Amino acid sequence: MNELTIELKQDGGLSLYEQIYRYIREEIRNGNLERGEKLPSTRSLCAHLQVSRSTVLMAYEQLLSEGYIESAPHKGYFVADVEELYDVRLISGEPKPSAAKKPAYRYDFSPYGIDLDSFPFNNWRKITKNVLVDDNKELFSRGDAQGEAEFRKTISNYLYQSRGVAAKPENIIVGAGNEYLLMLLNQLITGEKLFAMENPTYRQTYRILNSLGERVVTVLQDKNGMNVESLAKSGANIAYVMPSHQYPLGIVMPVGRRVELLKWADCKKGRYIIEDDYDSEFRYRGKPIPALCGFDKGQRVIYIGTFSKSIAPAIRMSYMVLPDEMMKQYHERIGFYSCTVSRIDQIVVKNFMESGCYEKHLNKMRALYKNRHDVLLGELDGFRKRFEITGENAGIHLLLKSKENISEKELVEKARREGVRVYPLSAYDIGKEKREYHTVILGYANLGEQDIRQGTELLRRAWK
Amino acid sequence: MNELTIELKQDGGLSLYEQIYRYIREEIRNGNLERGEKLPSTRSLCAHLQVSRSTVLMAYEQLLSEGYIESAPHKGYFVADVEELYDVRLISGEPKPSAAKKPAYRYDFSPYGIDLDSFPFNNWRKITKNVLVDDNKELFSRGDAQGEAEFRKTISNYLYQSRGVAAKPENIIVGAGNEYLLMLLNQLITGEKLFAMENPTYRQTYRILNSLGERVVTVLQDKNGMNVESLAKSGANIAYVMPSHQYPLGIVMPVGRRVELLKWADCKKGRYIIEDDYDSEFRYRGKPIPALCGFDKGQRVIYIGTFSKSIAPAIRMSYMVLPDEMMKQYHERIGFYSCTVSRIDQIVVKNFMESGCYEKHLNKMRALYKNRHDVLLGELDGFRKRFEITGENAGIHLLLKSKENISEKELVEKARREGVRVYPLSAYDIGKEKREYHTVILGYANLGEQDIRQGTELLRRAWK
Repeated sequence: MNELTIELKQDGGLSLYEQIYRYIREEIRNGNLERGEKLPSTRSLCAHLQVSRSTVLMAYEQLLSEGYIESAPHKGYFVADVEELYDVRLISGEPKPSAAKKPAYRYDFSPYGIDLDSFPFNNWRKITKNVLVDDNKELFSRGDAQGEAEFRKTISNYLYQSRGVAAKPENIIVGAGNEYLLMLLNQLITGEKLFAMENPTYRQTYRILNSLGERVVTVLQDKNGMNVESLAKSGANIAYVMPSHQYPLGIVMPVGRRVELLKWADCKKGRYIIEDDYDSEFRYRGKPIPALCGFDKGQRVIYIGTFSKSIAPAIRMSYMVLPDEMMKQYHERIGFYSCTVSRIDQIVVKNFMESGCYEKHLNKMRALYKNRHDVLLGELDGFRKRFEITGENAGIHLLLKSKENISEKELVEKARREGVRVYPLSAYDIGKEKREYHTVILGYANLGEQDIRQGTELLRRAWK
Repeated sequence: MNELTIELKQDGGLSLYEQIYRYIREEIRNGNLERGEKLPSTRSLCAHLQVSRSTVLMAYEQLLSEGYIESAPHKGYFVADVEELYDVRLISGEPKPSAAKKPAYRYDFSPYGIDLDSFPFNNWRKITKNVLVDDNKELFSRGDAQGEAEFRKTISNYLYQSRGVAAKPENIIVGAGNEYLLMLLNQLITGEKLFAMENPTYRQTYRILNSLGERVVTVLQDKNGMNVESLAKSGANIAYVMPSHQYPLGIVMPVGRRVELLKWADCKKGRYIIEDDYDSEFRYRGKPIPALCGFDKGQRVIYIGTFSKSIAPAIRMSYMVLPDEMMKQYHERIGFYSCTVSRIDQIVVKNFMESGCYEKHLNKMRALYKNRHDVLLGELDGFRKRFEITGENAGIHLLLKSKENISEKELVEKARREGVRVYPLSAYDIGKEKREYHTVILGYANLGEQDIRQGTELLRRAWK
């Protein structure tokens, strides 16, 4: 047994007990104190180091609890039988950004962005402030797994009034984004599963299903949306559709097709339709079309809505409406999952909706996007000879298809050379075979009217 | 063709176009207008109804876009070929709460609750307010999939200083709770998977793995935690452990066992350790024990931390640290998932940490919980003859095991009759075979000192 001589520093930084603890730990780690070796008694060490006995005791206790040393009754402390010791890695350096920086464009017709300049920050801040009062501290405790009951009631009212969907609040599940809800849903639907998707489609869903190990087939998509004959032939039992505004093609599914789709689901047990109603708020002619779910008598439709487009992408908040039978399954099998959205955030959005701010915001955005939409369509008028324009009735993007079969790649590249970013349709292709594309996508939500004018002027030059 | 006579109301409510649209839609739905039937021309209808032509046009356009009618060039409008029409269901009534109400107890020794009275609401509100300024509107746009870079840097510093974990910010992934992170992680680990868990254990993880379709074996748990020999025999390749404070038993895994566990993982490719470090902040003797991950040279440990216990359960915010090799997989395979936590909330927590509020809060809570812990242990002193007390060095609960083999059920029931809620250990059992339990759990985070005294007094009476 060595008498441990530890140079103790009084000048701040580490406490005495911690210095002793660290010293002994290091001695054990580097092998100066060998396994089984007896340590000095606390009494002798405190005398030796001229510190209080409790200081030594604390150090020993820490070493004991971490397993470096062991104590034997009436015998004292010994170095524990530690086979091999691992060091704490020391890593330095700045974090690298996890996403690569995009090249700069003068005008970016991104279909992903939304306009944030018009966001009612003052109202949002005020509402948040009012939610964060002491009386609401209950909001920091665990909430309802499905989402706050009052929030679900508000969503229910909203869905009924604006989407024609009569969703019972108890059938609504709030989650942190569509992606998470799809993960939940996939656990809820058991048995043989084959998903049907259109092509091109919302690729994120395809990737998630793939990553979850599910099988996906693509079925024919005609001018009215998913072709139900092709769907029936595919053998799929779950159809993923965006009837209000197919992404990216912008197809609005007419009532006839909706009814066909519902019939398909009704005629065999275990068939479901997932209705992704991601941007139904933005429609420029007439009022929004009721959701497919609103027509569903057979309880085959799972409705998914989101606040990503209508409020902000960073507000990770979506919801789904499950049929009764599936709700039973939910409670039995996956009701144990906690809600993934902060209660406070839920109440902020609820109050935002109930105060009328949401409606006002939606109307404002609709008017703003409609202006941009009209300006873009006006500017594109001269393009019509050489391009077919589609998907322009709703949403925040439209499509330009070359009538001369100029390849999408060439269109994107030529635009890029003029400093304008347009988006290739092929990015939404989920098929196994490569197809030729002659279509590009132009989003306009995040561009001012002047930018749209100048951007299209450059496109005219690029593609002439 | 009928001449449509629609009784139009001018007295608010619906606009004229909407009244026309709704009337025709109803006529189609109830069959008064049959499929293929020609509608009046817009010119004749507007004259008939004495409204402007654009009003009729808008109504027709809405019907067109919803697929109720079709237009034929030079011929006019016809009722579309809609096979069968579904009605919007009308549902009324209040939402039922989705979780059943618990019976009332005078004293509830819940191991789940945390003390919220001590939460620094003023600071939190101030920080939130400062984040929600106009300059920060960028925070409402889509953020980094892994979580905000600056937030991850803050977490990295925190982990290094308080947990001995040298995590590179680029290896950290922020998510809405441990449950979600487990779902992600499960997609990341491919190939044959067999998870090993202790028993009893944190049941939520078991349920999630089950629900994801994964196989889980239970392995022996001795006084030092997961038994590595038993683990090796089980054939499992992924070990789920809580080395800092096993839940629910409260075992602190000594260094020797940690090293053994790391060796197990190192000696075969594809082996991983998931370290759930859920409540390492609350430890009452010595300083917190460094995380297992801090000893990991072989990059086999996936570290999961959370703010649920240390800040508040409703703040759905956890993070995991992945080994380098797994990060590569993450980027290649599942980097497309958006972050599930709102950017604003991330920055609020980041500022909470950086301002020193978090540390202050942790120290305050530690002192508070320690007081309650000490009071409870003091009150339980008289129980020691008949009960073994374990798991009392850390966390916010402890265990009482009957030395007389009184069944857990009897203990819980007798306590209930006195109005005191204690928790059965068997609720954490994930084994296939039923085991006898004589242990109950007493949590103390959410009880004042006076409540603890009175609650234990009642327990003394209940169990005498």
